[in-house]
Amino acid sequence: MPTLEFFYDFVSPYSYLASTRVEALAARTGAALRWRPFLLGGVFKATGNRAPIETVAKGKHMWLDLERWSRRLEVPFRRPTSFPFSPILALRAALAAAPADLPKATHAIYRAAWADGRDIADAAVLTAILCEAGLDGPTLVAAAPSMKEALAAQTQEAVDRGTYGAPTFFIGTELFVGNDRLDFVEEALGKAR
Amino acid sequence: MPTLEFFYDFVSPYSYLASTRVEALAARTGAALRWRPFLLGGVFKATGNRAPIETVAKGKHMWLDLERWSRRLEVPFRRPTSFPFSPILALRAALAAAPADLPKATHAIYRAAWADGRDIADAAVLTAILCEAGLDGPTLVAAAPSMKEALAAQTQEAVDRGTYGAPTFFIGTELFVGNDRLDFVEEALGKAR
Repeated sequence: MPTLEFFYDFVSPYSYLASTRVEALAARTGAALRWRPFLLGGVFKATGNRAPIETVAKGKHMWLDLERWSRRLEVPFRRPTSFPFSPILALRAALAAAPADLPKATHAIYRAAWADGRDIADAAVLTAILCEAGLDGPTLVAAAPSMKEALAAQTQEAVDRGTYGAPTFFIGTELFVGNDRLDFVEEALGKAR
Repeated sequence: MPTLEFFYDFVSPYSYLASTRVEALAARTGAALRWRPFLLGGVFKATGNRAPIETVAKGKHMWLDLERWSRRLEVPFRRPTSFPFSPILALRAALAAAPADLPKATHAIYRAAWADGRDIADAAVLTAILCEAGLDGPTLVAAAPSMKEALAAQTQEAVDRGTYGAPTFFIGTELFVGNDRLDFVEEALGKAR
């Protein structure tokens, strides 16, 4: 059974889109899915890459493009009031979850940030989001600071393996970057099976 | 009949990929296709955007990604010996062609640069490429300098209408950027019809 690694950051809207369909893709291809939160800002810093919104025209097109994608995928999408926001607390809290709970925590945080317009950078809001998802919000948020090194290590690993953006997918050493490359991921898994 | 405008630069490999399938797309959707060479370097300068290869990891992934795309589209693809190369002479010569000859000139130049490893920045090579395509190479290459302003104007127009990269597509005021957005272009033309 091949393993598909999914590196994502909550501040990345294209990672949100990918998060809504990566499980179905893994199920279709018989792949084991590994959820790997990482810090996109750290990837940018390490590689010299930049966020789309740092180029004004690219940022404008990105919001249009995200509307098109959300319509196509039929997933709720609402442009956050404040963007970019800090994903660090939420990433660390997610990393504090047991592996079995990580998908649930991830979906809850993404939905809050990208569909419900909630401020995931706020500890109280984040705690509530996790509790509503049936997780132990207070414990996860309290454990977040202890995940600082783990998040940095996952980020550095992704950089060392060649990525420059999010979402990032690996099938072994094979790298795919972008929600819009999931069809190539699926093709590769079809062959890997 | 809706019009699809296709802005492309010969130095852009993703524009090459798009050039191989944009006519079939227009035929399927009943759109009139308008070929519009422009200078991607001018777009980058005007918008502050950068080429993928300016970020090392992004550049490496780009070559992988282009291999994947060329296999999928079943089009020949060979990484040029020298990249980036100057597309200016070829863009101006293409603009000097009669509108009816522009697709033929475009395909010939793209094939030379991205499948046959030829140096389209060299006037003698470019002349030969155009002649082999059944066009008047010497006249087009001689007319290239007179197209300086026209190329700058097409580039500025694309920037003014909101783009930041290549290939760029417009359906009226609706903007799409990237070979990987042609499926959205096709959807939009399906609705526009």
